[in-house]
Amino acid sequence: MKVLIVYYSREGTTKKMAELIADGISKAGVKVKVSAVSEVNPEELSEYHGIIVGSPTYYGTMSSEVKKLIDESVRLHGDLDGKVGGAFSSSANLAGGNETTIISILEAMLIHGMIIQGDWQGDHYGPVALGKVDREVEKKCRRFAERFVSLLRRVEKG
Amino acid sequence: MKVLIVYYSREGTTKKMAELIADGISKAGVKVKVSAVSEVNPEELSEYHGIIVGSPTYYGTMSSEVKKLIDESVRLHGDLDGKVGGAFSSSANLAGGNETTIISILEAMLIHGMIIQGDWQGDHYGPVALGKVDREVEKKCRRFAERFVSLLRRVEKG
Amino acid sequence: MKVLIVYYSREGTTKKMAELIADGISKAGVKVKVSAVSEVNPEELSEYHGIIVGSPTYYGTMSSEVKKLIDESVRLHGDLDGKVGGAFSSSANLAGGNETTIISILEAMLIHGMIIQGDWQGDHYGPVALGKVDREVEKKCRRFAERFVSLLRRVEKG
Amino acid sequence: MKVLIVYYSREGTTKKMAELIADGISKAGVKVKVSAVSEVNPEELSEYHGIIVGSPTYYGTMSSEVKKLIDESVRLHGDLDGKVGGAFSSSANLAGGNETTIISILEAMLIHGMIIQGDWQGDHYGPVALGKVDREVEKKCRRFAERFVSLLRRVEKG
Repeated sequence: MKVLIVYYSREGTTKKMAELIADGISKAGVKVKVSAVSEVNPEELSEYHGIIVGSPTYYGTMSSEVKKLIDESVRLHGDLDGKVGGAFSSSANLAGGNETTIISILEAMLIHGMIIQGDWQGDHYGPVALGKVDREVEKKCRRFAERFVSLLRRVEKG
Repeated sequence: MKVLIVYYSREGTTKKMAELIADGISKAGVKVKVSAVSEVNPEELSEYHGIIVGSPTYYGTMSSEVKKLIDESVRLHGDLDGKVGGAFSSSANLAGGNETTIISILEAMLIHGMIIQGDWQGDHYGPVALGKVDREVEKKCRRFAERFVSLLRRVEKG
Repeated sequence: MKVLIVYYSREGTTKKMAELIADGISKAGVKVKVSAVSEVNPEELSEYHGIIVGSPTYYGTMSSEVKKLIDESVRLHGDLDGKVGGAFSSSANLAGGNETTIISILEAMLIHGMIIQGDWQGDHYGPVALGKVDREVEKKCRRFAERFVSLLRRVEKG
Repeated sequence: MKVLIVYYSREGTTKKMAELIADGISKAGVKVKVSAVSEVNPEELSEYHGIIVGSPTYYGTMSSEVKKLIDESVRLHGDLDGKVGGAFSSSANLAGGNETTIISILEAMLIHGMIIQGDWQGDHYGPVALGKVDREVEKKCRRFAERFVSLLRRVEKG
């Protein structure tokens, strides 16, 4: 079982979140690779059982760099069906578009036929950092990683 | 394994879709109950492994009757975590809010911690009928039912 | 020129926001009425030049009480065309669905043919309170009121 | 008064819609420029009173090419405040993400502080073509153009 975390990060906040989530997944016993979006080939996506995408909040949707990968993934449309997905975002401020950014990634995953899960606690659609990665954000990233692995295990065993 | 399909229907289109989906789930060998939203007690929701919600497209989100059940389900917040969810809608016309209506239901399910899946073919977020239930809509409802059962089986075995 | 602010509030936070926004609109020289959603008749909506709707964040969309008024407003569908709209929300926590709640109200307004505006500063889709109304929220509500009146004046003069 | 229509088009459907909308705006007596997104410099956006953005439906949000322009427009953040915006999309199929694509563009416009309007008839969030531009789509594009000009006139006179 392998998980890919793809992120785009200019300031480093989204990258730090990616690394925290990767650490959580790894500690839960699952192989994980963290890649900047510029290093990911769309074909690569089909090799993983779970895919997590992180983007800064730019005008209410994922950044164009992340969207480019998603658009190019049309070449393997159908191959991601049934894989497990998740999303996270970093944002300059509250109510600045972080929820709609995460939803924009989750919608793309649904269109690929992927399986996603929300969280009844904390950040419901996926973890969000406001400006910086503090203790609270670290906790949210770790919780997200654990839940992601649980879902992946259920889906893969099933 | 038991699935509940909750719907609200004034004209009967959403109800017909509910029945078609129920038939598909039943034929796939899973127990299913179809209920008008007025007959459903929020506490009941926790008895099911899968919950499917259907609403007509009213001003771009689920109807108030459906939302009322969702709002009242706060009494069992946490109990629906890890259950499988899905949504469908009937709409008067194309681009009239059917996608955003389905997304509004799926967002509520994510906030409950539920597991959802899109479809890489046809109606990506969930089946949509425009005005009437014809052959095409029937096919979409049956496909949705089959995929729902597949996901439920994977999640429940896992 | 008259503005109606409709809100639903259980804890009082959304109500307090409604009153702050009303005060801002009134101070800008425009007549404003604040009503709990239970007191508003859908037909009444067509008497106003601007309509602002506030809802707590319940499962990622407006509360069922607010949605009921929106659903019933179908009786005057077409009459709200060209009116000015806006939305605000109070939420228990960050990334808990406040943005999607506001968007759900704005989508309903667009379907009515209404005119809306975002803000390039602060809460882009509409003001959000997290749990309580502090100084920061008050400032956001006042800014929102001023911008709403500006838009209303431009639209009504034109 | 000048309007810019920016589009991205691979198959030509979105381009045809752009041209129909431009024709409608021009016939209503307002100056309009139609540009492929690759030819538009973000700084240029601030020269126009109205901006309309068209994108094919790619995975539920605007195409990465369109998003790139939006992301780069951060350099003039604040300058588009109070301008009039609108969006349209072409999609392979019904319920395939066309509504969420248009909403993704409108959300970006709201974050810029722009003014948008829906339509109580037809495609509520903005015109959508399914696969091809037929008579029906032409009518929708012309109606959209007329309403856009009306709004622009109201806002600019005010």
